[in-house]
Amino acid sequence: MNRNPATAALAESLTDERLRPFLPLIYAAWSTGELTSDEIDGICGAVARHSGVDVDCQVALRHWLDPEQPPSPQELELLRLQLEGWSDVVASQPSSSAADVGIAIAEATRSMAAVTEAERAALADVESTIGPVPVVSPVPLREMFLPTATFDSSVLAAVLDGRHSEIRNRMRKLLAQPEFAYPDPLGSAEYRELVLRWARSLADEGLGALAYPSPYGADDRGALVAAFSILAHHDLSLLTKFGVQFGLFGGAIARLGTAPHHDRYLKAAGSLALPGCFAMTETGHGSNVRDLETTALYDPISDELIVDTPHDLARKDYIGNAAAHGQLAVVFARLVVDDTDHGVHGVLVPIRSKDGAVAPGVRIEDNAGKGGLNGVDNGRIWFDHVRVPRTALLNHFADIDDQGVYSSDIPDADRRFFTMIGTLVGGRISVGAASVSVAKSALTIAVRYAHRRRQFGPTPQTESLLIGYPTHQRRLMPRLAATFAYHFAFESLIDDFADDDSDRLLEARAAGLKAFASWHAIDAVQASREACGGQGFLTENRLTTMRADADIFTTYEGDNTVLIQLVAKGLLSDFRHQFESAGVTGAMRYLLHRASDAVIEANPMTRSTTDTDQLVSASWQLGQLRWREKHQDESLALRIKKRLSRGVAPFLAFTQVQTHAASAAESHVDLVVLREFVAAVKKIEDRTSAEVLDKVRALHGLATIRRDLAWFQEHGHLSGATATAIRKQHDRLVSEIAGESLALVDSFAIPDEVLGAPIGIKAIAIKDAVATE
Amino acid sequence: MNRNPATAALAESLTDERLRPFLPLIYAAWSTGELTSDEIDGICGAVARHSGVDVDCQVALRHWLDPEQPPSPQELELLRLQLEGWSDVVASQPSSSAADVGIAIAEATRSMAAVTEAERAALADVESTIGPVPVVSPVPLREMFLPTATFDSSVLAAVLDGRHSEIRNRMRKLLAQPEFAYPDPLGSAEYRELVLRWARSLADEGLGALAYPSPYGADDRGALVAAFSILAHHDLSLLTKFGVQFGLFGGAIARLGTAPHHDRYLKAAGSLALPGCFAMTETGHGSNVRDLETTALYDPISDELIVDTPHDLARKDYIGNAAAHGQLAVVFARLVVDDTDHGVHGVLVPIRSKDGAVAPGVRIEDNAGKGGLNGVDNGRIWFDHVRVPRTALLNHFADIDDQGVYSSDIPDADRRFFTMIGTLVGGRISVGAASVSVAKSALTIAVRYAHRRRQFGPTPQTESLLIGYPTHQRRLMPRLAATFAYHFAFESLIDDFADDDSDRLLEARAAGLKAFASWHAIDAVQASREACGGQGFLTENRLTTMRADADIFTTYEGDNTVLIQLVAKGLLSDFRHQFESAGVTGAMRYLLHRASDAVIEANPMTRSTTDTDQLVSASWQLGQLRWREKHQDESLALRIKKRLSRGVAPFLAFTQVQTHAASAAESHVDLVVLREFVAAVKKIEDRTSAEVLDKVRALHGLATIRRDLAWFQEHGHLSGATATAIRKQHDRLVSEIAGESLALVDSFAIPDEVLGAPIGIKAIAIKDAVATE
Repeated sequence: MNRNPATAALAESLTDERLRPFLPLIYAAWSTGELTSDEIDGICGAVARHSGVDVDCQVALRHWLDPEQPPSPQELELLRLQLEGWSDVVASQPSSSAADVGIAIAEATRSMAAVTEAERAALADVESTIGPVPVVSPVPLREMFLPTATFDSSVLAAVLDGRHSEIRNRMRKLLAQPEFAYPDPLGSAEYRELVLRWARSLADEGLGALAYPSPYGADDRGALVAAFSILAHHDLSLLTKFGVQFGLFGGAIARLGTAPHHDRYLKAAGSLALPGCFAMTETGHGSNVRDLETTALYDPISDELIVDTPHDLARKDYIGNAAAHGQLAVVFARLVVDDTDHGVHGVLVPIRSKDGAVAPGVRIEDNAGKGGLNGVDNGRIWFDHVRVPRTALLNHFADIDDQGVYSSDIPDADRRFFTMIGTLVGGRISVGAASVSVAKSALTIAVRYAHRRRQFGPTPQTESLLIGYPTHQRRLMPRLAATFAYHFAFESLIDDFADDDSDRLLEARAAGLKAFASWHAIDAVQASREACGGQGFLTENRLTTMRADADIFTTYEGDNTVLIQLVAKGLLSDFRHQFESAGVTGAMRYLLHRASDAVIEANPMTRSTTDTDQLVSASWQLGQLRWREKHQDESLALRIKKRLSRGVAPFLAFTQVQTHAASAAESHVDLVVLREFVAAVKKIEDRTSAEVLDKVRALHGLATIRRDLAWFQEHGHLSGATATAIRKQHDRLVSEIAGESLALVDSFAIPDEVLGAPIGIKAIAIKDAVATE
Repeated sequence: MNRNPATAALAESLTDERLRPFLPLIYAAWSTGELTSDEIDGICGAVARHSGVDVDCQVALRHWLDPEQPPSPQELELLRLQLEGWSDVVASQPSSSAADVGIAIAEATRSMAAVTEAERAALADVESTIGPVPVVSPVPLREMFLPTATFDSSVLAAVLDGRHSEIRNRMRKLLAQPEFAYPDPLGSAEYRELVLRWARSLADEGLGALAYPSPYGADDRGALVAAFSILAHHDLSLLTKFGVQFGLFGGAIARLGTAPHHDRYLKAAGSLALPGCFAMTETGHGSNVRDLETTALYDPISDELIVDTPHDLARKDYIGNAAAHGQLAVVFARLVVDDTDHGVHGVLVPIRSKDGAVAPGVRIEDNAGKGGLNGVDNGRIWFDHVRVPRTALLNHFADIDDQGVYSSDIPDADRRFFTMIGTLVGGRISVGAASVSVAKSALTIAVRYAHRRRQFGPTPQTESLLIGYPTHQRRLMPRLAATFAYHFAFESLIDDFADDDSDRLLEARAAGLKAFASWHAIDAVQASREACGGQGFLTENRLTTMRADADIFTTYEGDNTVLIQLVAKGLLSDFRHQFESAGVTGAMRYLLHRASDAVIEANPMTRSTTDTDQLVSASWQLGQLRWREKHQDESLALRIKKRLSRGVAPFLAFTQVQTHAASAAESHVDLVVLREFVAAVKKIEDRTSAEVLDKVRALHGLATIRRDLAWFQEHGHLSGATATAIRKQHDRLVSEIAGESLALVDSFAIPDEVLGAPIGIKAIAIKDAVATE
């Protein structure tokens, strides 16, 4: 062994009380093995700057931390044992920072006066020089220093609930009642009836009508989505049934209809006295609903609309509430008046009587087995020249008068149609917010299980908790951070939606966030399932059901891939304007302008960095994402411009650059999410909540940048050294947040009854669980 | 518009027959919009090198391809119409290369002599300069040039089946029989009985005993895994039941037992006359099976073993065949003889009588609902001091003699245990091979659907096929390429396993490939499900069931995360040897040696390149993966070495570097997969199969490198320009392979009856499907 006589005396210094505040730091420095020589040097340098620190102590520290002469294994073991002797002190210490732990030990154990200001300042200086050195590292020490959160999870829970805390708490209580307990597996017929009963219970509480205009409801869109976000912790068939009945069906009547429709139907829709359908999707047209083929032909003689399914691919498909319960349907059909096709409009068509008999001219087929959501009665509907009165047209945006003349304030058929479906943006927001809740449920289960389950260890008697394994932390922590990020992105979206739901910018934001959140949900559930091993595969632990049900969130209310293209089109509209108004010369000038931008931004000082403070800062992280978004937007616009100028048709030009469009759109959504997270943290008044969330934000920001590090390097924007620093800092944050993770998932405040999973309930105290296993 | 008088005459050149072979190339060059000015220049340069090409033709080509003066939209449209007029010729042309299409058009349509050697050489030169220019690009042209494969899928199918074609075809025929048709959804009791009946039918065909030693079976391990790989296209509960009964239960008796056990049980195991369990996993120990807690205490007085479950967490859990059908179990328990714990051994314990009564002292509980595989009767088993004769010990590796003395040829308990379970490597290989089949099933469905389903388009009448969208191609093609890669990796693994199943190197390879293949399977199924939209979510289309069932493939037969660590440990053993033997000086020398390596490899000419031929070449791709593996291995070894030399205990040291270990292991598996793919392509005799597969290999190689482009750049190994070239070439290959994809999935040769999914069957001719929709 490479031994140094100078270090032989180190063991003696363990009894020197003056060194005591620094011992955890010394141990952390060597035991993680991740500090560089420069960083170890940095520790001594920082301490040396504080002349108030005892000189002998400085010398001892320098011996312990000599990068050329690391302590021997025996010395390190002695130090570890020494620290283990103070485990009581450590356990009572809320922080996991080596500096804080050192101060606590010194305060509690040494006979001399209290920890001096100079010592505190020196330790603070160390941490600000090399970043916080957590004692929660995957060493036996972490078992001793059982992770203790630095914040109060109930305070953070209140922060997360925000202005909708009342309705959210009401929902939690409601769903925790025995009535909503999960049954043993049911056949699909029984399951559908149970879901209907559950939905009625919610309607009885007035929840169905929350968003309808007064006097039919509480006119509170924000509250509805907030309630929906809690409902999403429960059975997702119930969630979907709720969304179809109160959101889509009732919502379409509220928004596309006028007073007579409201008077006649809204109360019954909100109370579930009138179960209904939102019949938009056709077998041949799921995403491209502008080109639906069902027709509603105005017959001036009888003053009726004739609703018809021209061929099999134009049948309505996957319609919720159709197979069993629906009585009235909002049917989206091409309105043809006097031989003119005015595009797709909503028409009310009865499909079943109260006693369940299918209406004449209507044919319904059960969609039968699905990959999930089997508590929802999806079906297919054919209309064979079904006649309804002219007034069945939902006529808020367009009408046929009693002379049989069609009129609309929006003359362009396409624009009219997109205005109509634009008012249904609430559905996308709701599914996105629900996706965030699904991720919360899954991660709550997986994080708690990781704090209970042991596997492998140095000996059979000392198996480690799963949460102590770096690969396990890496699997769960970035996903936990992303879940918080999406939470805040949706809180802000819900607020803006509640304030003004006609804002067209909201549509693209909702589209992008819905796509990201739903992909995140299934990814988080899958990671959680795998992290719980075979236990995660048992139905009783709910993860597989969540996974199966939420799968279709990536498709319904807009296929994610299509939504991403929608975001891209939104981005391009800015550029289109620029190109159109400026012509070719303008475009050239624009290109030159862009080239000079590139020169300015090429200055590496403004971006490549290995400074830890900078890497975790909101401003640096936002700067990177902003740069990427701008670069990709512009390059996308230029690619399209190039094609258009060569006469490539717009549809084709856009299709050719589709993968670039997807990248640009995804970069945009990444930026929106981080921006909202940063803004949300700024607004938090509680200091400790803000601190921990800022750390979570820092992880999410680094994880986002890390995902595209190849691109950042390829475009010369970040250096290899910065990439290395990002990976390292990312992994540190993962380890730190692992220590807070139990309290972080507690802040989601999911009642045990609603979470359901035996392996994920909170009620068992962790220590008991460990003892039982 | 930026018009050039010189180009005004271009339209005239369309009638000039001399230019005809080059027309598709010209159209492709402008219409995709992706060729750079340099590349367009390169086309002219290449042609100019061939003096045999008519000079007027060269001039016309130069006009058409002047980057400064692109053709006008009108001219391009004229060209397109001209090409469309020759669509018959094009359709009959198997290749999608613009050069080949041009030759075919010229041969078929021009009045002058056949295409000259100079023209052919010029076109070949163009393609070798700028890479093949496919005419299958997402332009209206691609609808005209309906993708036509360049190879015969039945020939490729034979290549894929390889030496096991006979058993595979037999399985295909067997499973296509009406008896194996998929039923409507069943309750779990009925489902389990159906699966048992199916398994019996397979046993009746002698398939259960394929791998057992003669005279009990055919002694053909390779054939068994090959049969299993076809069975994996069918119901995965049946697959699992088959694996549990014939592979795990019977296999354990065959491998861990001796002649008396074989005589007594193997025939009945292979015929399913004796349903049995492989009782290894316990609730408290799933991955760390070395520390199982069930005991088998030798009682010298009665000459019996007493099998006992000491506490609840030591109950056997998730045991297939336990809840309903199993009669005999191979129970893994700590063998205690004369107060000495000899570690875990297999003991035969009856758990049920023939009439289904649970044996005395045995308690069984149903695992009940699972996320999938509900046709398998998993259960929990407790043993309360159950007595079995001493001869119930499976005594191939260790025995207790009639004097009650324990002996084994492998004195070390750990090594003995790992040797015992090492012989069960067949299970991992089987699950991995089955995972590849699951990915094949899913992608077959999604690729066929993408060639049938239309959505969006320039007008409602001209909606595009999904396969024409670049984002859709990007979603499916790299996964299709990976599926071929894993296919060949497993074919080679199966061969080596069939030759010699005791090779310890096989274990790490099987572990790594099983982990990768099972993760790939669920990823491919999920991507396929999303690519089929709502149709993919219908149970009848099988994707969601596959997804739910295959989910647990990532956990059973070894949790993937744990398996990856196993691979890493395998990698390290080389280095450990080096360190141990060389001591500190040796390590220093090793380090110096490594530094000089780095200097050599820093020469950018050997790695960074933008040359297309090089990027797609097997040697360049393998070189990159080899470099990464070597670098990560060494860095991992050094990290561990550093910790060990500081006295960090081995378990802890390894845990601290766990994420690095995972990266190194994954890089290793990536390399193994590509290496096997390259080797397999080399061995193929059929030229067209080899060509298309080499293209698929090129895509898989680039996709693998692309996934880690951040790392390659961070370590200064690949330049930003190379990264750009890789992305570009990757996307080109994706588009080219999309044109071959229908034939590629046909080569998987999954019978329609077995595939099941109405949206994915082959029987409907594509053109008919398009017409019906």
